[in-house]
Amino acid sequence: MVEATGYWAVEACDALTGPHFSDHPDYLFRPYLGPAHLNAVEQVAAWMGEAGMTTRIDGAGNLIGRYGEGGKTLIIGSHIDSVRDAGNYDGPLGVMLGIVVCSALHAAGRTLPFAIEVYAFGDEEGSRFPAPMLCSRAVAGSLDPSALEVADAQGMGLAQALALNGLDLTRFTDAKRDPSELLGYIEAHIEQGPVLDAENLALGVVTAIAGQIRYEVTVTGVAGHAGTNSMALRKDALTAAAEMVLAVERIGRNGPDDLVATVGRMRVSPGAPNVVPGRVDFTIDVRAGTEEVRNPAAATIVDAIMAISGDRPVDVKVHRVHELPPSPCDPAFRAMLSHAVEAVGVRARDIVSGAGHDAMIFSSVTPSAMLFIRCKDGISHNPLESVDPADADLALRALLNFIDQLEAAHV
Amino acid sequence: MVEATGYWAVEACDALTGPHFSDHPDYLFRPYLGPAHLNAVEQVAAWMGEAGMTTRIDGAGNLIGRYGEGGKTLIIGSHIDSVRDAGNYDGPLGVMLGIVVCSALHAAGRTLPFAIEVYAFGDEEGSRFPAPMLCSRAVAGSLDPSALEVADAQGMGLAQALALNGLDLTRFTDAKRDPSELLGYIEAHIEQGPVLDAENLALGVVTAIAGQIRYEVTVTGVAGHAGTNSMALRKDALTAAAEMVLAVERIGRNGPDDLVATVGRMRVSPGAPNVVPGRVDFTIDVRAGTEEVRNPAAATIVDAIMAISGDRPVDVKVHRVHELPPSPCDPAFRAMLSHAVEAVGVRARDIVSGAGHDAMIFSSVTPSAMLFIRCKDGISHNPLESVDPADADLALRALLNFIDQLEAAHV
Repeated sequence: MVEATGYWAVEACDALTGPHFSDHPDYLFRPYLGPAHLNAVEQVAAWMGEAGMTTRIDGAGNLIGRYGEGGKTLIIGSHIDSVRDAGNYDGPLGVMLGIVVCSALHAAGRTLPFAIEVYAFGDEEGSRFPAPMLCSRAVAGSLDPSALEVADAQGMGLAQALALNGLDLTRFTDAKRDPSELLGYIEAHIEQGPVLDAENLALGVVTAIAGQIRYEVTVTGVAGHAGTNSMALRKDALTAAAEMVLAVERIGRNGPDDLVATVGRMRVSPGAPNVVPGRVDFTIDVRAGTEEVRNPAAATIVDAIMAISGDRPVDVKVHRVHELPPSPCDPAFRAMLSHAVEAVGVRARDIVSGAGHDAMIFSSVTPSAMLFIRCKDGISHNPLESVDPADADLALRALLNFIDQLEAAHV
Repeated sequence: MVEATGYWAVEACDALTGPHFSDHPDYLFRPYLGPAHLNAVEQVAAWMGEAGMTTRIDGAGNLIGRYGEGGKTLIIGSHIDSVRDAGNYDGPLGVMLGIVVCSALHAAGRTLPFAIEVYAFGDEEGSRFPAPMLCSRAVAGSLDPSALEVADAQGMGLAQALALNGLDLTRFTDAKRDPSELLGYIEAHIEQGPVLDAENLALGVVTAIAGQIRYEVTVTGVAGHAGTNSMALRKDALTAAAEMVLAVERIGRNGPDDLVATVGRMRVSPGAPNVVPGRVDFTIDVRAGTEEVRNPAAATIVDAIMAISGDRPVDVKVHRVHELPPSPCDPAFRAMLSHAVEAVGVRARDIVSGAGHDAMIFSSVTPSAMLFIRCKDGISHNPLESVDPADADLALRALLNFIDQLEAAHV
C-alpha cells in the first residue's frame, strides 16, 4: 500500500528489483520495452491507482498517472528504465516521489488549481537503443523522426520492439504535449555524484544540466593468427583503440573540473585469445557545464583519434550519435525550489548536474527545475547506489512545499 | 563422393561451412562440442567410410578413421573445431588430406605393414573452453585431470558439454593411446603465416613449433556514472587496461622477430556508453621459437601490468592459463618429409611454426612432423583464408611419398 512518505518511496524502488523487474538474472537491467520494463509499468500503475491517480500509457510507452482536474498540468517526471548492472534509485526514486506527492495530496483531500501528471518515462538511459531520452523527447515534441530509426544490439528495430508491447511506431510522437497546457516540469533525482555527500547536505537545487556529446567509433584492422603475424606486419585494431582510449582520458584530464570524457562500451572482434583483433567498436561520451568547454574538447578528441589512425595501419570511422546542449533550469522554479529546500531545514546548495536527465529535454518547452537527493559516496550506475530514506522524506516535504507555493501563485 | 585428390580435400573444407556446420549465422564458428561440431563429425565420418576407413569416437569426442590392420599405427591428425569468424582450412584441410591419403591407398588396394588412423580432434583452438588442445593432450596422455575443470563463457562446464554429446567426463582420458603402439604422428596444415607465399613455395617442412604462454587478466576499478564522476576521482578499469594493452605491444615489438605478444579477447563491464567501466577481462598470448626469448618477455609483460595497476586506482589479477614449451619435430620424420617435398618438385624449405598445433602435443610421445601448405597472403583465423587447390594436391602427393618411404623402412 502506498504510504505518503519518502521512506515508502525508497522501499518502492527496492521492491522494483529482482527477476520480475530485471532482464538479467544476476543484476538489475531494465531496458526500454523489455519484459522487465513491462512488469515495472504494471506495478507502478497499480501504485498510482492506490495514490488516487488515473493512469494511461502514451504512444512512446510512457506510463502517466494523473491527479486532479482542470487548469494546466505540472509534470513530475523521471524514468523507470535502467543501465546494465544498475542501482535501485536512478530514475525510479523521482517517479515514486511523484506518486507519494499525489498520495499525500489525495490523503489530505486537496484540490489544486492545476493537475499533476507523474510521468514514468520508458527510456532515459539509452541502454537498449543508441539514442537516450527518446521518450521525454517525444513528450516535449523535440524528437526528429529520423531519431526513431534505431536498432538494439540484437538488431531489433524500435518499431518491432514497440509492436511486441502493443505499441505502434507511427503513433510514437503522439506522446507530444501541447506546451500551452503545461504549467512546468519538475524532477527529483539522486545526484549520482559526490558533492552533496561531501558537504553533508540531503538536498541540492540544480542550476543547469551539462551538455553531452556521444560518439560511436569503429576501428578496422585485419584479423589474423596471433602466432604467425609478426609484430611489425600485423594490423591490430585493439592496440590502436587502446591508444585512442588513453587520448580520450588525457584530453578529459587536461580540461577544467566539469569536463568529463569516457569510453564506456568497447567490443573487440573476433575476440579470441589467439587472434589479432580485426575490429573494435567503442563509444565516447563528452560532457561539460558549457559548450565553450565541451565542444573544443570533443573536437580535440576526434582530431587525436584521426591522428592515431593515421599513424597506425588501421581505418577509423567516428560517428556522432547525439548532441545535447547544456540546459539551464528556470529561474522562477529554481527560486521556489530553493525556498522549499530551506523550508525543510536544508541549506539550498546550487549544483550543476554532470548527468543528463529528462528535465533537460523540457527546459526549452516549459519552466523546468530539478531537486537533487544525496546518494552515498556519489556512487551511481552501480548496484552499490544507496539513498538515506530520511533524505527522500525531506525531498517529499520540499516538493509538497514547492506545490504549495505554486498553488499560491495560481489561485 | 571422396576423390583421391588434394582438389577434393579443399572442396570438402569448403563444404564444411554454412549454417549446418557453424554455430553463428553470420560467420564460421565451430566450437568444441557445439551443434556444428556434432554435425561436422557426422559428415567427416561419412567421408571416412567412403574412403575405406572404419570410424569410431573416443572419450574426448575425437573422430577417428582407421585404414588397414596390424602393426603399429601412424596417426595423421588435425582438428575440426574453429576460432570465431574463421576461415575454412585451419584444421579441416589436414583432416581431409588424411582422408584422401587413405582413399588413394584404398583405391590402389594397398596393404601397408602399419595402420593409419586419421584423427579429427575436437578441440585445438580453445575457442570454447579456456584451455586449447584438450583433445590431442588426452590422446597423447599428457592431460592433467585438473585441466578438465573448465567452463565456457556461458558458464557451462566441460562435463555438461560432454554429456550433451553423449560423452562422460570420467572417460575423457580413455582417449589416451599407448605410445608403444604408435609409429608416429604427422600433420598437414596451412602455414597461417606469410613466409611460403612470399617465397613462392607451395609447401614447407616444419622444424619446430613455437612455445606459447597464455594469461587471463582481470582489471577491477569502480563502475560509476560517466557524467558525475570527475576525471580525477574515477577508478576506470578500461583506461588502465588500455595502458596494459600498449605495454604488451611495446614489449612484443622490442623483442626478436619470432616474439609475438597479443591481446586477442577483451570484455568491458558493465559496457554502457554512460558508465565508467568497473571491470575489464582480457587475454595475453606470448610466443617465441625458444624459451630463452619467450620467458623473459612474458615476465616483463607481467611486471609491466603490475606496475600499471600500481600507478592507477585499480586492482589486477594475472592468471597463467597454460604454458606449452617449444616443440622440435622428429629429425628422421623431417628428413623423410623433406625428401617427399623435393620428390613432388618443391624446394624443401625449413620453417618454424609461430602457431601452435596438435603436433606439438605428440612430439614428446612419438616421432612427429608437420607439412605446411601455403595460404594466400598468410591470412588465417579470418574468412579470407585461402588455399590453392593445386598446392593441396602437391601436399597429398608428398604425404603419399612419405608413406611410401615409411613402408619401405618397415617392410
